Amino acid sequence: MSLAFDGFYRGKNVLVTGGLGFIGSNLAIHLAGLGARVTVVDSSIAGCGANGFNLDSAAAAVRVVACDIADTEQVRSALEGVDLVFNLAGEISHIHSMLFPERDLQINTVAQLRFLETVARFAPRIRVVYASTRQVYGSPQYLPVDEHHTVEPADYNGVHKLAACHYHTFLTRIGRIDALVLRLSNVFGPRMALSIPCQGFLSVFTARAMLGQPITVFGTGQQLRDPIYVDDACEAFLRAGMAVNPAVRVINVGSPEVRSLKEIAGEFSQMAGLPAPELRPFPDDLKAIDIGDYYTCNSSCQRVLGWVPTTPFRAGLDNTLAYYAGRLAHYLPDHAQGRCPLHP
Amino acid sequence: MSLAFDGFYRGKNVLVTGGLGFIGSNLAIHLAGLGARVTVVDSSIAGCGANGFNLDSAAAAVRVVACDIADTEQVRSALEGVDLVFNLAGEISHIHSMLFPERDLQINTVAQLRFLETVARFAPRIRVVYASTRQVYGSPQYLPVDEHHTVEPADYNGVHKLAACHYHTFLTRIGRIDALVLRLSNVFGPRMALSIPCQGFLSVFTARAMLGQPITVFGTGQQLRDPIYVDDACEAFLRAGMAVNPAVRVINVGSPEVRSLKEIAGEFSQMAGLPAPELRPFPDDLKAIDIGDYYTCNSSCQRVLGWVPTTPFRAGLDNTLAYYAGRLAHYLPDHAQGRCPLHP
Repeated sequence: MSLAFDGFYRGKNVLVTGGLGFIGSNLAIHLAGLGARVTVVDSSIAGCGANGFNLDSAAAAVRVVACDIADTEQVRSALEGVDLVFNLAGEISHIHSMLFPERDLQINTVAQLRFLETVARFAPRIRVVYASTRQVYGSPQYLPVDEHHTVEPADYNGVHKLAACHYHTFLTRIGRIDALVLRLSNVFGPRMALSIPCQGFLSVFTARAMLGQPITVFGTGQQLRDPIYVDDACEAFLRAGMAVNPAVRVINVGSPEVRSLKEIAGEFSQMAGLPAPELRPFPDDLKAIDIGDYYTCNSSCQRVLGWVPTTPFRAGLDNTLAYYAGRLAHYLPDHAQGRCPLHP
Repeated sequence: MSLAFDGFYRGKNVLVTGGLGFIGSNLAIHLAGLGARVTVVDSSIAGCGANGFNLDSAAAAVRVVACDIADTEQVRSALEGVDLVFNLAGEISHIHSMLFPERDLQINTVAQLRFLETVARFAPRIRVVYASTRQVYGSPQYLPVDEHHTVEPADYNGVHKLAACHYHTFLTRIGRIDALVLRLSNVFGPRMALSIPCQGFLSVFTARAMLGQPITVFGTGQQLRDPIYVDDACEAFLRAGMAVNPAVRVINVGSPEVRSLKEIAGEFSQMAGLPAPELRPFPDDLKAIDIGDYYTCNSSCQRVLGWVPTTPFRAGLDNTLAYYAGRLAHYLPDHAQGRCPLHP
């Protein structure tokens, strides 16, 4: 974390939804380190990536409430005295959403509506920072992708996450909450779920690197991406929590380092002493929702948050593999990449 | 109806969802007149505007199935042998959506997801024409509003209708259905619900004109609108049903005649022999979701559908008031503008 945050978070009461998940748990740990009083709300829905072990290093400093954000009564109680909300609860898997669209709608839209209505009623006008995704843009029509780019979600997950984004922005415009939305590029790092192969290529590559299994890439491998290290994503959240009256309420956040999937797979393979990645034809279901090249225009991030992601990809990758070494049993309990709990 | 449609609809099996409602019933009657075999599906949810009397003039020619579009089994049965779907089921009231957001989500998003999954599974790749709304754009950033305009819904209804629009477009891109989406401006004409004051200003103005009650306008009355007569909206649907492989899947449709709300209220008042409209301050709940000026760029409509709306506003207004004369008991049973069934 490059920034001291000048004591802003010291003593603040902060709620992190989805705080047992990948980014949420990293954020909760950073917040505890900055002196915040952190409450995590998480319902540990199978397939979404919650893992109690994620908070192992901060167990004494973080209060965990097992509840769904759609549970008005429990959320109301958890919101008492809260100064800020980091809203990261959700399902990120595009594949799960295409297999079980109503499940995705329930988790990403219905529950968010109920949660934000609860916030607006019982903790009105507090800052909410929401984890949105590049996924809402669909296939880029130009690069880098800025916030004015047409939204054209490519799958159910994108539609449902976009609806939740619009909840945040319109409720802010009418003065019922005070939200900022971060549209994150692909995030990687410690505490990613490795046992859910439908959570994206960075999770799959990490699992295979840790298990010593050769990595495969679908298609030509030429698709560009800008993977962002999780500490940078957390810094974006922390800065968004502090931004005073920002004129812009939707901010793209990605890494300035752009690489092809094949290059990314190559770096994972090299670090793990694996053979070069193998290219394989796209399975039909994945091809249908593939979006081609994507990388982020960080100019709003620079302007509104005063900063852009800084961790070099290679350093992030080092940290990631170092984290899992010795902790693999907590992420891949069978010492083999898991089958998805949703379609075993 | 300016077009013979060259027999395209003769003998076609057509399903109209929301076919007891305002636009749906007008469309069903036009389709029956063109020789189509029409099935209407409608669940008559209170507050959405269904009225059995709307199909009175075509009762023998139109089959009515009382079912919710979310009911997979009944929809599957209704879809048997169907060649085209006109998908107009929904709740249009912005005010209802702000009072009962989860109800709006259920009607406009959850039910549409289930309906389209049923279509994709049991009647794959058939043409679906969906009734979307200018509401998804929010406050215009430029005029006239084309389909590239940023979507920034101003209320729950807009968020939920936009999600359903995205279902139609992404399922079309991946080849599971073949949809066209019409983003309609404010529509008026015979068969509007008059007893639901939350359905928009054209319904309110019509009810007051018929009842001989002076019309009031909120704010300065200078907000521009392009009200489209319902027969023109129906022609847009019929043309969209026929469009072969259109490159564009979202089409704005509005009237080329642009007027201020005050002028529109003035024409209603004049036709009904009422005093000039009175201006009143905006109530807070309406002001919060007001979008300012709006009028439509019809160039995609012209290019893809080969036509733009043609009915002069004044002629549409004549037809509208003439329709309700003698039928008012079916639309305002208490001979007073109803209180909304949702918040009496």
